[in-house]
Amino acid sequence: MSTTSFPLLQTVNDPADLRSLSRSDLKQLATELRAFVIESVSQTGGHLSSNLGTVELTVALHHVFNTPDDRLVWDVGHQTYPHKILTGRRDRMSTLRQLGGISGFPQRTESAYDTFGTAHSSTSISAALGMALAAKRKGEERHVVAIIGDGAMTAGMAFEALNNAGVADANLLVILNDNDMSISPPVGALNRYLAQLMSGQFYAAAKNVGKSVLKNAPPLLELAKRLEQQAKGMVVPATLFEKFGFNYIGPIDGHDLDSLIPTLENIKDLKGPQFLHVVTKKGQGYKLAEVDPVAYHGPGKFDPAVGLVKSTAAPKQTFTQVFGQWLCDMAEQDDRLVGITPAMREGSGMVEFHKRFPDRYYDVGIAEQHAVTFAAGMACEGVKPVVAIYSTFLQRGYDQMIHDVALQNLPVVFALDRAGLVGADGATHAGAYDIPFVRCIPNMSMACPADERECRQLLSTAFAQDHPVAVRYPRGSGAGVAPLRGLDSLPFGKGEIRRERKGDGKAGPRIAILAFGTLLYPALEAAEALDATVVNMRWAKPLDVELLLEVAASHHALVTLEEGAIMGGAGSAVMEALAAAQVTMPVLQLGLPDVFIEHGDPARLLALQGLDAEGIRLAISARFGAHPAD
Amino acid sequence: MSTTSFPLLQTVNDPADLRSLSRSDLKQLATELRAFVIESVSQTGGHLSSNLGTVELTVALHHVFNTPDDRLVWDVGHQTYPHKILTGRRDRMSTLRQLGGISGFPQRTESAYDTFGTAHSSTSISAALGMALAAKRKGEERHVVAIIGDGAMTAGMAFEALNNAGVADANLLVILNDNDMSISPPVGALNRYLAQLMSGQFYAAAKNVGKSVLKNAPPLLELAKRLEQQAKGMVVPATLFEKFGFNYIGPIDGHDLDSLIPTLENIKDLKGPQFLHVVTKKGQGYKLAEVDPVAYHGPGKFDPAVGLVKSTAAPKQTFTQVFGQWLCDMAEQDDRLVGITPAMREGSGMVEFHKRFPDRYYDVGIAEQHAVTFAAGMACEGVKPVVAIYSTFLQRGYDQMIHDVALQNLPVVFALDRAGLVGADGATHAGAYDIPFVRCIPNMSMACPADERECRQLLSTAFAQDHPVAVRYPRGSGAGVAPLRGLDSLPFGKGEIRRERKGDGKAGPRIAILAFGTLLYPALEAAEALDATVVNMRWAKPLDVELLLEVAASHHALVTLEEGAIMGGAGSAVMEALAAAQVTMPVLQLGLPDVFIEHGDPARLLALQGLDAEGIRLAISARFGAHPAD
Repeated sequence: MSTTSFPLLQTVNDPADLRSLSRSDLKQLATELRAFVIESVSQTGGHLSSNLGTVELTVALHHVFNTPDDRLVWDVGHQTYPHKILTGRRDRMSTLRQLGGISGFPQRTESAYDTFGTAHSSTSISAALGMALAAKRKGEERHVVAIIGDGAMTAGMAFEALNNAGVADANLLVILNDNDMSISPPVGALNRYLAQLMSGQFYAAAKNVGKSVLKNAPPLLELAKRLEQQAKGMVVPATLFEKFGFNYIGPIDGHDLDSLIPTLENIKDLKGPQFLHVVTKKGQGYKLAEVDPVAYHGPGKFDPAVGLVKSTAAPKQTFTQVFGQWLCDMAEQDDRLVGITPAMREGSGMVEFHKRFPDRYYDVGIAEQHAVTFAAGMACEGVKPVVAIYSTFLQRGYDQMIHDVALQNLPVVFALDRAGLVGADGATHAGAYDIPFVRCIPNMSMACPADERECRQLLSTAFAQDHPVAVRYPRGSGAGVAPLRGLDSLPFGKGEIRRERKGDGKAGPRIAILAFGTLLYPALEAAEALDATVVNMRWAKPLDVELLLEVAASHHALVTLEEGAIMGGAGSAVMEALAAAQVTMPVLQLGLPDVFIEHGDPARLLALQGLDAEGIRLAISARFGAHPAD
Repeated sequence: MSTTSFPLLQTVNDPADLRSLSRSDLKQLATELRAFVIESVSQTGGHLSSNLGTVELTVALHHVFNTPDDRLVWDVGHQTYPHKILTGRRDRMSTLRQLGGISGFPQRTESAYDTFGTAHSSTSISAALGMALAAKRKGEERHVVAIIGDGAMTAGMAFEALNNAGVADANLLVILNDNDMSISPPVGALNRYLAQLMSGQFYAAAKNVGKSVLKNAPPLLELAKRLEQQAKGMVVPATLFEKFGFNYIGPIDGHDLDSLIPTLENIKDLKGPQFLHVVTKKGQGYKLAEVDPVAYHGPGKFDPAVGLVKSTAAPKQTFTQVFGQWLCDMAEQDDRLVGITPAMREGSGMVEFHKRFPDRYYDVGIAEQHAVTFAAGMACEGVKPVVAIYSTFLQRGYDQMIHDVALQNLPVVFALDRAGLVGADGATHAGAYDIPFVRCIPNMSMACPADERECRQLLSTAFAQDHPVAVRYPRGSGAGVAPLRGLDSLPFGKGEIRRERKGDGKAGPRIAILAFGTLLYPALEAAEALDATVVNMRWAKPLDVELLLEVAASHHALVTLEEGAIMGGAGSAVMEALAAAQVTMPVLQLGLPDVFIEHGDPARLLALQGLDAEGIRLAISARFGAHPAD
């Protein structure tokens, strides 16, 4: 990137460099920063709209507050590119979200300015309150600021934190970055409520009217004052946050440094919980993104002058699309189906379903806990809910899955997208733990389709059951096996042998690979070199014990394979079943190790974990003898 | 129980029987119902205060609504004894919370009137909204009512549900049962806010004043009306819930049928989301419970005429008490320690800590998600949080444990009380899944103390680590090994051999039992008959692999033993380690099977699962030959 385009920005290597800048210089800096973000993201891909929305806010925060001693906690964290650029990572932006490069989210290990790692939403107020009260305990004077979007505010844990913070004696500033756009269109009472505010003229008018009303009641001065505050509350969201014990300030224009900086400076002097309402626009300053912030939410590489171009090559169908198509087709066939998403319409492939079946589509907001129990309530009444939820976000609805769905054995289908490694989003979003945490729960079943065709079939199987079933499938595309058009099921809890060991009179141990999910395909490739049997297990729970024991009886050793944590995973299920059947034989477990795996290209990450065909072959050879099929 | 004391109640075998009763008969019924609850609970133990608080509300709801076709969803559900008594289970109240008897919570399998199983808090609005929207989809006309306490309202998922329900076109009635008492004293902004309302006189005065102010502004009628609503909002909590899109009604006296019945009848005719604020008193009508509702929250058996009597026998120390004592002692020694509880001060044994270290004690309300991330925020700043949380409630903070604590490898101690079976509370509260769901997370460690002494030692070990550690211990007391006074640690990740097989020249397989947690003691007993080696493994993660392999090398077979789910549990960790070390040998896994286990006496429940000494001995003999030590 040419530094000539960014003469001022290139002088800022640390927020200290911008504390002394004049207001006009800061404005120039913001202009350059915005251009830098566009250029940078166009070259690496990543989040765009959200970062264009926080340019001025980031400049103002680092200008006014003494970071990193003052703590900034960015909720979700996908809006922190300006923050990263201003805090010494400008030159590393070209490595964003790539293996060995910087993360697309704040990370404590990456910078002292990243005070708290985020990525899942709505954690910032809790963390910031913890920091503020810790500072108080240690007698340290510092400001702690949580910056949270209006979408993230709908999640329960943000309310839990507000409820706690409002009565805590802490110097905490919560900035609501109100851009009226989470990934999916905003839903829920809170967003409707915030939207009222945008009619600022009505607010101004009402305020004056309030005064004229009140001046007729002079003896009741104190009450009148409160009445006026309430009159204000009628059209601005002030009172809601004030009821939680916060001092509400705003709304102010989040793209206007002349508003932001003086307001933040004033707030610095206030004690107790403060709530600043800032209005920004996602995609601000890049026309194409302003017009279509959803498309520019997380674009790949693009030419900033041209914008996103539809690829002419027919893209490979993703599992997300397979799910979306299945959902529509099954909805057409079965009137009982409803679709539920916690604010992930696009990511979960439900745009078409929403369009075609609007009254059977429920976007409940960023509210995984509610989504699952809401589904349970529906299932009690004979409706058949399909909850589309990323594997990593089911962690938010875990208790509800156990206590409300599984315990009552209600027929809810969990469509778990992004199972396994997720690539550029990294460890925070890894769907690596779902097999262990789902299968240990009674009444739960879990399918692991090996390809697109099976994904559709196993969704149909799941939907046909009278008990809860999770179907896990990875981000992106798989082997490319086109789904069949019908809605046929596969047998519940049954796997299949995909490759029989040939033998050919050769020596070497008879090995069977038991694959759970999409790693079936590299397993088949590895098996050719090894002459191993390959079993497509399909179900992590219930396990096809009959098939397992049949294969166990005719082989020397088993290899289990899954794109998920080894600890407690499907391979362990295999060993449990063998132990229960009193079968003692060598088992090699292949899967994800007990470490958090950072961002990077998914195929490369899998290869690094030895989960490509070559890695699988090598691991098996190393364990059971080199080239057993030679 | 003599039916002569309950002449009217004994005629009510179904809510239909009370629909035709006169108001005065209903009052008589409520009187008898209250007396019946006191007599019944005094004989079985169970929840008392909460049930005395809902007597009139229950009568009114079943009188006004057409249950079970209209749906009542009771949040938490520990206040449903009056509901159970009126819905055909009067005679079964003597079996409450006992093996084979009725549950202390609503259960769908128990009665058509129990429309949704509850026990964990704050699920009712989500479930009720699901039911209401399902009814709408199916074109069925019915009322759906969620009854939720003010404590449960602080949990995030209640807000998620409010946020969603407020904009949903559903006929949903949420009744806030405001008794200003969750188990621990209420905390947080919401409770403070609700408390303002109790100054009802101020409310009345303000309302009149509001009117006199407004009548001076005749041309602004519409605005004036809103202003008056807002003036009301100044002193009553109306506006908070109205901002979520609900029509707020109340507050009304929840012990006055003359208020309750007409109000509910009026609400029946209203469309859209309704919010009724009812004020009740826990323990109402039983003086001793009114005075000390905490003591009578969940009493054992007692004489109603005398009340609770302190046992003269020195009770066995519970694990909860061991934790409470350790917390105080460690706090005294280490200034960095803070204690965090999500509204479980009593249950988690933190009363003394709260008293002695009030500024290091954080009750964050029923808010497990927030509790965990709040701890993470504190840990970032060098404070050392101990989060006391029931195993079953950590399910609510699971994502936060993964995403905010483990991923950042922050030194947070999770003190998991109620691990394993919990007895009378039953399946909803079982801490059966924590080993699988914790150990699959990188950076997490998990200790399983075998007795009280180890519990204290392992808490010290956990606290000394620079990474997150969970310590799980069961409800009630253990083997009774008195804790040492000091704060000495046990080695991190190390187990010990507690009994060496003697051999004595006898034949039979050499068996080693690997016990995780308190089942060590029945294992030792069983081992005498079997002449088995017994290993106290102590850590589910990291596993003491060195010790394991040493034992594996000198024995024919291993038996793993844990009070937790077999699927993915510590036994599976053992098999994973053996497989990784290429050791192939017979393993028998003993633990909890893959079913939900109902309420009952804990020792009896364990015995039924074969997890007492006799059951362990029999299981091992059956697997490895009868009486191997004979």
